[in-house]
Amino acid sequence: MTETFTYRSIGIIHSEHTIAENTPIQSVYAKGCKGQAEIFPEFAAGLQDMEGFSHIYLIYHFHKSHQVKLLVKPFLQDIERGVFSTRTPYRPNAIGLSIVELLNREGNILHLDGVDILDGTPLLDIKPYTAKFDLHAVKCSGWQDEVDEQTAQRRGKRGYNK
Amino acid sequence: MTETFTYRSIGIIHSEHTIAENTPIQSVYAKGCKGQAEIFPEFAAGLQDMEGFSHIYLIYHFHKSHQVKLLVKPFLQDIERGVFSTRTPYRPNAIGLSIVELLNREGNILHLDGVDILDGTPLLDIKPYTAKFDLHAVKCSGWQDEVDEQTAQRRGKRGYNK
Repeated sequence: MTETFTYRSIGIIHSEHTIAENTPIQSVYAKGCKGQAEIFPEFAAGLQDMEGFSHIYLIYHFHKSHQVKLLVKPFLQDIERGVFSTRTPYRPNAIGLSIVELLNREGNILHLDGVDILDGTPLLDIKPYTAKFDLHAVKCSGWQDEVDEQTAQRRGKRGYNK
Repeated sequence: MTETFTYRSIGIIHSEHTIAENTPIQSVYAKGCKGQAEIFPEFAAGLQDMEGFSHIYLIYHFHKSHQVKLLVKPFLQDIERGVFSTRTPYRPNAIGLSIVELLNREGNILHLDGVDILDGTPLLDIKPYTAKFDLHAVKCSGWQDEVDEQTAQRRGKRGYNK
């Protein structure tokens, strides 16, 4: 019943993060981390109107993830969890999702803040993150509710110290 | 410079939506739309710990989208916009993203509410949507800020009238 789907990169993400182990795990722990999404010229027309959004989703390929684990210790906790309850790169499909701040657009380049993505990561899609669609009333966040904010900040930033 | 990446479906989404034109465009317009994410047995172990989260991201393949448009009229407005500033299925990579409410888990089945996805859609990934990671201070939502809430509700629900 499994089907396969092939996608192509629409661009590349540039960031100051070159070592996976030192890269913040989420954009909330990457404030001040600048970066760019460079969209290949053939797709650049699709960037029209982006500049009006303060936040965007980047969907990308975890190009340094070469294993799959169904149970994994998440970055924030030393207890094994089901992979789909975590944001780890070691997923059956190595698809990453980040919400980053869009600072401005310069032609086919999006200038970003809050970049939690390794330099050179292939970009698959961009979607707007909007007030109408993406703010949901979270009631509970599973095992994450066991992690206090100070611990989350420390473990979430990893080597990043700006 | 374009690279290609092949992913396989990890499951299938079941919903009451069988006609694309009548399917709500976002989960915020799909309150009361129940559905299930059925995960194939080989990946089911990765669902451990999911049941603690009130909301999850589903990442899936728009299997009924067979064209690409770089400029497209979004569902909420009759003005052409860059595809990456919209959530249209007609994207260079036909990847869909929904935030749905997780009601409960029964083995390899996740029972969901707010399902804005066509029945039979191949599922690529599941990630938790959490208080720590996914609530960002939206400052502006581009062209969507021009659409009043009443219009958005009407156009967003499309044929759906629960």
